[in-house]
Amino acid sequence: MKKARAVGHDLVVVVSAMSGETNRLIGLAKDIQAQPNARELDVLVSTGEQVTIALLTMALEQIGCSARSYTGNQVKILTDDSYTKARILSIDEHRMRTDLQDGKVVVVAGFQGVDEQGNITTLGRGGSDTTGVALAAALKADECHIYTDVDGVYTTDPRVEPKARRLDKITFEEMLEMASLGSKVLQIRSVEFAGKYNVPLRVLSTFTEGNGTLITYEDSEMESALISGIAFNRDEAKLTINGVPDRPGIASKILGPIAGANIEVDMIIQNIADDETTDFTFTVHRNDYQKAKAALEGTCAELGAKKVTGDDNIVKVSIVGVGMRSHAGIASTMFKALADEGINIKMISTSEIKISVVVDEKYLELAVRTLHSAFKLDQPPA
Amino acid sequence: MKKARAVGHDLVVVVSAMSGETNRLIGLAKDIQAQPNARELDVLVSTGEQVTIALLTMALEQIGCSARSYTGNQVKILTDDSYTKARILSIDEHRMRTDLQDGKVVVVAGFQGVDEQGNITTLGRGGSDTTGVALAAALKADECHIYTDVDGVYTTDPRVEPKARRLDKITFEEMLEMASLGSKVLQIRSVEFAGKYNVPLRVLSTFTEGNGTLITYEDSEMESALISGIAFNRDEAKLTINGVPDRPGIASKILGPIAGANIEVDMIIQNIADDETTDFTFTVHRNDYQKAKAALEGTCAELGAKKVTGDDNIVKVSIVGVGMRSHAGIASTMFKALADEGINIKMISTSEIKISVVVDEKYLELAVRTLHSAFKLDQPPA
Repeated sequence: MKKARAVGHDLVVVVSAMSGETNRLIGLAKDIQAQPNARELDVLVSTGEQVTIALLTMALEQIGCSARSYTGNQVKILTDDSYTKARILSIDEHRMRTDLQDGKVVVVAGFQGVDEQGNITTLGRGGSDTTGVALAAALKADECHIYTDVDGVYTTDPRVEPKARRLDKITFEEMLEMASLGSKVLQIRSVEFAGKYNVPLRVLSTFTEGNGTLITYEDSEMESALISGIAFNRDEAKLTINGVPDRPGIASKILGPIAGANIEVDMIIQNIADDETTDFTFTVHRNDYQKAKAALEGTCAELGAKKVTGDDNIVKVSIVGVGMRSHAGIASTMFKALADEGINIKMISTSEIKISVVVDEKYLELAVRTLHSAFKLDQPPA
Repeated sequence: MKKARAVGHDLVVVVSAMSGETNRLIGLAKDIQAQPNARELDVLVSTGEQVTIALLTMALEQIGCSARSYTGNQVKILTDDSYTKARILSIDEHRMRTDLQDGKVVVVAGFQGVDEQGNITTLGRGGSDTTGVALAAALKADECHIYTDVDGVYTTDPRVEPKARRLDKITFEEMLEMASLGSKVLQIRSVEFAGKYNVPLRVLSTFTEGNGTLITYEDSEMESALISGIAFNRDEAKLTINGVPDRPGIASKILGPIAGANIEVDMIIQNIADDETTDFTFTVHRNDYQKAKAALEGTCAELGAKKVTGDDNIVKVSIVGVGMRSHAGIASTMFKALADEGINIKMISTSEIKISVVVDEKYLELAVRTLHSAFKLDQPPA
């Protein structure tokens, strides 16, 4: 930070609580109330970031870098009153601007705000990223840097494909697809927020120097790759109800009890089995597999369907890229590459900028490497 | 608290940080800055009380007692901007009144406030008592209860005189003399503050039930005792400069260098030794004895005085009571009782409501017990 100040950048820094602190505080609360009072829980856990802003500001002053700390209340990060999961409504950037003009580094507590009555609120887990993006938007910052434990966004997980390459740039949409598919570099909400307010995000490593990956809107400088990355999700399970008498409204009859049991459904496919019955398949998180299967058995009897089958040894592998929009033939390249390796595709689902397939868990690494190579992701685009 | 609510009392509760927490936070700061930035130190340590208000409020809700927590900022405990030792200027009781009308227990973070710019301030060590008194004054409370590790104010320290008796009532003035003389039940500042705003204080035990001791202004119901208690201070030392040529201004010449060395002087006595010289004696805290002696040696040479003598094995024992004002003979009773036990008095100093004597350290317990018995403090007044 001192270095960035030295080259003339105005800096506003957002910090999280120290490692383990938020969990320690939640533990104290749960020792008292199994379901802690939400308003008081926010009063409690917001102290975690308040400790960090003070300590970081002291550390900056100690190395001769003038700085000043602010709680969410002090820079009026106004939120709604949804304790533990509040949303930011507005930020008063006036005090920060004055400090920046005085050459000070502004240190702001992430994850917290106040509602209109002055009650302390928190943004929920990972909320410090959102605070950073919101401040960058309010201050019209050039970039919002997010320091993580990785040095950028990769074409895929380097632990699966050692040839994975760090991307210099990626679009918000691609990043959202990558994140929601299990590449846990950034909180989805902060990426959405940055996209909404057009705040360029740069993912950097806390531990090593480097340019990281810039997340921004598609522009002429953007890498002209068809595919930006391969995402995957290990913890999938699929369920099928076979031979359902084909009548209008069966989808809601099948998925109603699943939603009722608080189970989130990901991919959904419906095929016609013969003229009068249909097969209905969907995927859930592996942890919800047994619960979903039990719910489905009940529905099966009710609807007079044939049987319920399932598989909790599957994974989802996806290719993501905005280039897909304007190029045909991406899907067939993907399917052919997998077929050439003998990998059987069990489900397919597509969106504007991604194609996902479900395969046996044992093929995960092979599928990722095959696709990484098929789309030449190990080489920078021409 | 639930019990007090049940009988219809409106309750505002002020809490401190959990045991050890403030020191832990100061430790974190000192790991970063040997002299922590005062503004940031207040941001840091004020989290200690913020944790406690949330946890206490959860605990109250858990036992079915409706409650709500407030930070110093949230009830606008406005202070000056002297970080780490701020003074309270005003309190906005509006939100608290609304909660009290709704039957809620109001839980307020002690020790903290905000200045006019909204910066977080703290009142310095022991500041939670001051917060309690200030809130009681703002809300015009019937009484301010201060929970301590003792069950009231005693006629003297029960560890020295087992016959020491808990007082039902004591005046602010007496309490101030007792406190400043080393009876560390309450912070002096909170007693002064309570006296200034005429807030009746009740000292109670955190651990046992009881009525404690009420500290209030003198009234007709007040115990008609001459003497309320025996205070003492172990950590005293005395210094004498003998044979100082007696000229105007010698007191300031002698005490100037002592004050310059940041040493606080307690008792001061000046005697005429003969026609042309004088002996000048004063007491200091025992920790300052060597430093004061060194300073005095310099002054001795400068003034052409005879010599410097000293004694760091002395203690101060005092009798305190508003009854002294209207009764003669108290001093002679005191001196005779000590003389009867062969206790040599080395210095005497008096004020409106107290008489202090300096004696050899070895006589401390004997002197306290002798005086306790001479003034019949083991028996309630008639």
